[in-house]
Amino acid sequence: MENNNNPYNMGLAQNSANFSALSPVGFIERAASVYPEHTAVIYGDLRRSWRETYERCLRLASALQQRGIGEGDTVAAVLPNIPEMLELHFAIPMLGAVLNTQNTRLDAETIGFMLDHGQAQVVITDREFSDTVGKALKMCQQQPLVVDVDDIQFSGGELLGSLTYEQLLNEGDEHFSWQPPADEWQAIALNYTSGTTGNPKGVVYHHRGAYLNSLSNILGQNLPPHAVYLWTLPMFHCNGWCYPWAVTAVAGTHVCLRHLQAERIFAAIQTNGVTHFCGAPVVLNMLLNAAPQTRPLVDHPVTVTTGGAAPPASIIAGMEALGVQVVHAYGLTETYGPSVFCCYQQAWDELSLEQRAAKMARQGVRAPGMAELMVADPLTLEPVARDGTVMGEVMMRGNTMMKGYLRNPSASADAFSGGWFHTGDLAVWHADGYIEVKDRSKDVIISGGENISTIEVEDVLYRHPAILEAAVVAQADDHWGEVPCAVVTLKPGEALDAQSIIDFCRDKMAHYKCPKRVVFAELPKTSTGKVQKYALRQMLQP
Amino acid sequence: MENNNNPYNMGLAQNSANFSALSPVGFIERAASVYPEHTAVIYGDLRRSWRETYERCLRLASALQQRGIGEGDTVAAVLPNIPEMLELHFAIPMLGAVLNTQNTRLDAETIGFMLDHGQAQVVITDREFSDTVGKALKMCQQQPLVVDVDDIQFSGGELLGSLTYEQLLNEGDEHFSWQPPADEWQAIALNYTSGTTGNPKGVVYHHRGAYLNSLSNILGQNLPPHAVYLWTLPMFHCNGWCYPWAVTAVAGTHVCLRHLQAERIFAAIQTNGVTHFCGAPVVLNMLLNAAPQTRPLVDHPVTVTTGGAAPPASIIAGMEALGVQVVHAYGLTETYGPSVFCCYQQAWDELSLEQRAAKMARQGVRAPGMAELMVADPLTLEPVARDGTVMGEVMMRGNTMMKGYLRNPSASADAFSGGWFHTGDLAVWHADGYIEVKDRSKDVIISGGENISTIEVEDVLYRHPAILEAAVVAQADDHWGEVPCAVVTLKPGEALDAQSIIDFCRDKMAHYKCPKRVVFAELPKTSTGKVQKYALRQMLQP
Repeated sequence: MENNNNPYNMGLAQNSANFSALSPVGFIERAASVYPEHTAVIYGDLRRSWRETYERCLRLASALQQRGIGEGDTVAAVLPNIPEMLELHFAIPMLGAVLNTQNTRLDAETIGFMLDHGQAQVVITDREFSDTVGKALKMCQQQPLVVDVDDIQFSGGELLGSLTYEQLLNEGDEHFSWQPPADEWQAIALNYTSGTTGNPKGVVYHHRGAYLNSLSNILGQNLPPHAVYLWTLPMFHCNGWCYPWAVTAVAGTHVCLRHLQAERIFAAIQTNGVTHFCGAPVVLNMLLNAAPQTRPLVDHPVTVTTGGAAPPASIIAGMEALGVQVVHAYGLTETYGPSVFCCYQQAWDELSLEQRAAKMARQGVRAPGMAELMVADPLTLEPVARDGTVMGEVMMRGNTMMKGYLRNPSASADAFSGGWFHTGDLAVWHADGYIEVKDRSKDVIISGGENISTIEVEDVLYRHPAILEAAVVAQADDHWGEVPCAVVTLKPGEALDAQSIIDFCRDKMAHYKCPKRVVFAELPKTSTGKVQKYALRQMLQP
Repeated sequence: MENNNNPYNMGLAQNSANFSALSPVGFIERAASVYPEHTAVIYGDLRRSWRETYERCLRLASALQQRGIGEGDTVAAVLPNIPEMLELHFAIPMLGAVLNTQNTRLDAETIGFMLDHGQAQVVITDREFSDTVGKALKMCQQQPLVVDVDDIQFSGGELLGSLTYEQLLNEGDEHFSWQPPADEWQAIALNYTSGTTGNPKGVVYHHRGAYLNSLSNILGQNLPPHAVYLWTLPMFHCNGWCYPWAVTAVAGTHVCLRHLQAERIFAAIQTNGVTHFCGAPVVLNMLLNAAPQTRPLVDHPVTVTTGGAAPPASIIAGMEALGVQVVHAYGLTETYGPSVFCCYQQAWDELSLEQRAAKMARQGVRAPGMAELMVADPLTLEPVARDGTVMGEVMMRGNTMMKGYLRNPSASADAFSGGWFHTGDLAVWHADGYIEVKDRSKDVIISGGENISTIEVEDVLYRHPAILEAAVVAQADDHWGEVPCAVVTLKPGEALDAQSIIDFCRDKMAHYKCPKRVVFAELPKTSTGKVQKYALRQMLQP
């Protein structure tokens, strides 16, 4: 097939007129030049236009450049969802530097580890986190420039650094001329995985992927021009699933929110005409529990994209009753957030709520930006049958995929083994092409040669009216190899014994899948709210 | 700024899990796998789903591969806007081959030239054009495989080739496994410019640009999921401005139309729930003249993107009265069609129709996919003042730009001189960043040191109720260097003398801009309906 005399390759090379590196930084230049007076940011009483926001980004980039920050340098941020956090998503990559947003719920030791591992040259933080960040700075080797956001909308905490964010901005030039990256493969962000075991791994994003996942989000969630986006998802989480860039690409409005409180969210949606927001099912549950009696809640179309866990039918129905359309997305830190969407099919309109919710609870199909998605045997890479039954590992490949893990070549090689990214999630593949995640591969229970999905067992446990939280893990068993063991927290005022829970399960699912043992205890969780199953397994060891 | 020890470049290279070549071919695979039963194509009574359409593309690609077509081979098409034309936009690039859609209105000699220059291995044609194509095949050196679409919805003409399109399809395998291009810079299409002088130039598109301009269109025209697109713009024109790919990317529906007839367009919009279509202002004018008395015409939101010439206020107002929203776009064959959009500003709602139309008649700002746009001195590349007065040449750079002209390195070098694409269009730049095209640079008149926009003079002439068509060109003048000369066609039954036209102009614009001479004659035009000003200038030579 090779064609050495291909005339289409002769004298038709790339040049600066017909090739430019893909980068999301251009989104803000376009928003500011085309819609300079459109509202870019709302934060409490604060309103800033795209012109003002862009100027602030230019000044920040200019000031940091004067202080020596440039290509390949790391700028860490420990910030809530405030306008400054948004600005960093443009100002830092303008310099070719790398933005490392950190989970604000982490402990000092982990933050210190990340500052050292990422070799942060600058840390931008906020009084709200001064206690933890102050300790982290004392523990780490790195001696970054520390910059405080001194937000008048928050009181408490201390200023840790040598100057404030506004002082830094004042050092900069609003006419700063930034250059797009010479190479779209250049790193743009560093995001540490929460790491249920061992040290967090540093996932490196590139400009090309950030650009393409932004467009993929716009297509997947149908973000219109001037979408109004509410920041309920932490921007530190996979760069807010790339929405800082995506919403800017449509010259939308970012509605910032420091604290997740149901009444503030409801007020922001109504007052600002919010059209889109994102959040884990647990956030939606919080909204439903706090929702006022008057429904629908909203008088304009609102879409919420949820991920991190499958949304139960009750949450889908509840949100729809509030007037909010639910989109289920799935992804990982390694995939810039959403890389699989449960695309809605018109035919599902005909189904009962229960049936429809079962369809929508599946993770779905590849996002527009991801090239390929499969459920396959992790060793042979052979795709599983699309029968909704056989489990395999979820694998992906495409442009919205990390460069790899920073300074961790063996972890990168493992993750990309065989030319596919191995998610570590086990799923079935349905006949309609939709995947449904059943378990983390390291959590699945193999009992008498059968795979048992712990998620499936947990789903049954959650249906028990007295159970508040439940997690299922494997326990060694001489006869079966492994058997399911449930750890359960009851709702306040409830009482229940182990046998009645086992009976409840046996009534609802195949007996080999039912817990053989039930333990009543509080569940250990990561900073992002995920149950730490390795800790549970340790706890249960004889 | 170079950082040789940049840790973000160490062990983080591209691999098949995190990099894939951008290509619009993946759009159809996704549409067919996610929405297999959704209607992809409507053509008269014919309906085909995405599954069926994708299978036909696979069979076509397979059949052509068996006949030796592969990377770098040219497949020419002389076809109307029928489903087969759409299929070619996916089947041909699946093979790494290059699709050369040809203007069906061209003469046999020009078609023959293009078949030879493009070295077409295959020609796919239709009985409607058998007369011209038959002659062209006799005139050219190239001996391509000739394939006829034998459309039951058209009678007349002859079958020219050795087999029909359906026979070719039957040779192919619907399970054909295509590979994305190894390099996204690979050529995908060849489009000849209409060429007002000399031989047409072959503009080469690449997969990356076709992918990115598709997404740019989706953003620029706000194409929602399952958009219903009516094919009023010829698919042979810059690959239908990339809409064959863009509409597929949103798993929309392509409504095909062999002939442009107002009543068929109206019927198709209503019957099929069309949401979007495109066309030159002349097409919109045809619709307005034929519109039924009952208005609004449509009972659902419809957007038309118009380009090729600025839409006059009367057309904007007329379309809005029909219930159709107008988007003005500007671009060239070299820029994959639309590369500048006149993005609507909410503040324009407050303006009078006349004022608003004046804003909307401007070409606008860079499309999301284009990196940079400027109006500049063509020699120094110095941008002109944004004062709406000083003229300069429109220049662009970015990814939605051709590779260059096929086998024409000097033309490519001229076009990309100084690292910018020179459009050859003269424009002013307004304070709000919107550009407004005033003339082709080779048509502008320089009289006594002043630039005169022939478009501006023509606009005044068109306001005269007795004038049907008008064109203005330069005529040599001993005193002024050049002076404007108008060539005018009157409406049937009208009578007018030269002096009254000159007086009409002097009443409405600066006197130095007014025609010094008026000639009554029919205007010579290209196959795409553009006035051939070089022919006019020859005609007027003393």
